Amino acid sequence: MQTPWDHRYAQRTQRMGSSAIRELLKLTEKPEIISFAGGLPAPEVFPLEEFRAACGRVLRDYGAQALQYSTTEGFFPLRELIARHAARYGIEVTPDNVFITSGSQQALDLLGKIFINPGDRILVESPTYLGALQAWNAYGAEYVPVPMDEHGMRTDALEEALRAGPKFIYVLPNFQNPTGVTLSRERRQQLIELADQYGVPIVEDDPYGQLRYEGDHLPSVVVLDGQYRNDCHPCYRGNVIYLSTFSKILAPGLRLAWVIAPPEVIRKLVQAKQGADLHTATFNQLVAYEVAHGGFLDRHIQRIRDVYRERRDVMLAAMDRCFPPGVDWTQPEGGLFLWGILPDTMKSADVLKAAIEEKVAFVPGQPFFPCGGGHNTMRINFSNASPENIRTGIARLGNVLYQMVREQAEVTG
Amino acid sequence: MQTPWDHRYAQRTQRMGSSAIRELLKLTEKPEIISFAGGLPAPEVFPLEEFRAACGRVLRDYGAQALQYSTTEGFFPLRELIARHAARYGIEVTPDNVFITSGSQQALDLLGKIFINPGDRILVESPTYLGALQAWNAYGAEYVPVPMDEHGMRTDALEEALRAGPKFIYVLPNFQNPTGVTLSRERRQQLIELADQYGVPIVEDDPYGQLRYEGDHLPSVVVLDGQYRNDCHPCYRGNVIYLSTFSKILAPGLRLAWVIAPPEVIRKLVQAKQGADLHTATFNQLVAYEVAHGGFLDRHIQRIRDVYRERRDVMLAAMDRCFPPGVDWTQPEGGLFLWGILPDTMKSADVLKAAIEEKVAFVPGQPFFPCGGGHNTMRINFSNASPENIRTGIARLGNVLYQMVREQAEVTG
Repeated sequence: MQTPWDHRYAQRTQRMGSSAIRELLKLTEKPEIISFAGGLPAPEVFPLEEFRAACGRVLRDYGAQALQYSTTEGFFPLRELIARHAARYGIEVTPDNVFITSGSQQALDLLGKIFINPGDRILVESPTYLGALQAWNAYGAEYVPVPMDEHGMRTDALEEALRAGPKFIYVLPNFQNPTGVTLSRERRQQLIELADQYGVPIVEDDPYGQLRYEGDHLPSVVVLDGQYRNDCHPCYRGNVIYLSTFSKILAPGLRLAWVIAPPEVIRKLVQAKQGADLHTATFNQLVAYEVAHGGFLDRHIQRIRDVYRERRDVMLAAMDRCFPPGVDWTQPEGGLFLWGILPDTMKSADVLKAAIEEKVAFVPGQPFFPCGGGHNTMRINFSNASPENIRTGIARLGNVLYQMVREQAEVTG
Repeated sequence: MQTPWDHRYAQRTQRMGSSAIRELLKLTEKPEIISFAGGLPAPEVFPLEEFRAACGRVLRDYGAQALQYSTTEGFFPLRELIARHAARYGIEVTPDNVFITSGSQQALDLLGKIFINPGDRILVESPTYLGALQAWNAYGAEYVPVPMDEHGMRTDALEEALRAGPKFIYVLPNFQNPTGVTLSRERRQQLIELADQYGVPIVEDDPYGQLRYEGDHLPSVVVLDGQYRNDCHPCYRGNVIYLSTFSKILAPGLRLAWVIAPPEVIRKLVQAKQGADLHTATFNQLVAYEVAHGGFLDRHIQRIRDVYRERRDVMLAAMDRCFPPGVDWTQPEGGLFLWGILPDTMKSADVLKAAIEEKVAFVPGQPFFPCGGGHNTMRINFSNASPENIRTGIARLGNVLYQMVREQAEVTG
């Protein structure tokens, strides 16, 4: 007899549907479509030559070690390099605070594994990063959403949400995915003080913080937490678990990211990772170390900033020219995304259908809302298309929006 | 205030202690110790030159694609290559049956995620692979152990165990980790027929099947299942989920393995992997493909077999010379491990303590028993030490065993 697999799956799989975005991305993969849907870095900025040289050095200098099993915590010199790199952004920690993961998605998964009991509530920005919801749905998480405005999570609504007893707070303070919005300095301070008052840990997800195109760097939540505690121990022992990644500043195809956390949390994450994939690929860690060390990473990030700043500016200018009145969008100071807000009477899913006909794509915002809403929002990526394609694509999208606004006026008029 | 992290962790972490073996391995890492404790491949057989050439080709021919995000299912040409490679061992499947994971440990984790509800029973060989227990403990698995003898899982005890209603059967038919024992042809057939009769799926873990040093290859459980069903569809749609890996035939530091399963199971695994790490590193998949294709993999496996066969033979001969009467061990026809059985009055944990003093190490067998037992057993690896070190190390271990047997005789005499 055939095995009825559907009846064998664990209960948790019922909330594990395939990502709406990933399925959508398949539709938008046709070469004739200009896609602002994905969150892909620009392939033009991948340092291929440096990778080629680094692979050669790694296989020559480390030999068989590069291809052998290695420790779950991660390659120690890479953890040291990450601690030094973080210090450039004000995050003063030791390598004992640093843990290597197979991409930030794995960090989210492992955090779910060690923290979330079925039914536990997680306090999230609304909208928030879809990948975190995907990772935590599998552990039975429920969500306490806190609304956002142009300064990020609305901390005036935070205290009421904290009284729901969340397991932790999840926040993307810099150029948030999906909105592109940055949490203000004042609200960062309020966030860490309220979290401390209620004894609730914070998970700070910061894949884009190094990609700021204008304005001053704001101190990370983990830094403000350290200052607030006034603990002068060089090893960070506070209330924040900080995530960042090489995906946006080097290459996502390596699947290399890091967690900065108190050592006791890292010990627990290491136990979880042993059961999940033993360790992150040795070869990739050595190659990333060889590419990144000696100052290359800082120069490379500067180059990426220049490329993406231009693309953001081109997109914002094109939107000013091409989008109809009544459509609004955010003005991100960094990152990969901006956020479009349509008139409340319009559905971005309908816009997408019409847009694909016109060979342009984006992601409807609704899936980013953990508890519903956002039918009239859209996430638009500006890092992956060339300036020329951005101008063409936004013009196409503008035409679609003008037409839909006109049709709506005819219907309601 | 300090965050009391211990009180925040999820319930599942209570069974997620660090692997006893990994902690032990740290003790045995001193260079003066000859260690038979780990399960590491011999670094001497890693094809460094081929990797160097493949990295160059990948960065030249695939360019930025090698460093970009890619699909969760895995790089399609690598899935085709794996389907062709499996066919050499009698497993006739299509690329739709093949799914790439970040090492076999991830495959075990994802299987736990999609199948195991807290309290679900998994039918396992006793002893069984410790990494599987680690992965599944986190999902709240309980175990139904079936004892083994020199022909593998005792199928005469299988039917009673199946009546406990296990979610699936987990079996390592070839040169099992930890015992080195191979499941006989007859028992493979009994296993698939009983599993079909009770409607219970089988997870066949086969990291070592390609490393046979003598005797004839036995058909995999997945092959016998296909024949039993007599389904002539080219895509496998049966009752077995088969795991294998590049860790033992190419390099473990890549973290590359594969699952062969019915497409509907793969769809569910893909959903789980999206939330766990998005996808396995693109670069590693391309490099492995470039190294493995064009016949290299088969030649390389032949070379590994020659190296490991010699090491196994050296170890077995040294044991014959050096071990006292009353100590027994298995005669594996392949793989990386053999299994020592001490007199029932001796504890392998005590032997290990004395052995480390004499600068030789192995792994006590007890942790491999999911429901207790095995205090007098030891797992001994023969792949990672040179023949000379094997002779020296086994002589040292023989001295320790002779002395402990003598001391016991004095106490009891």
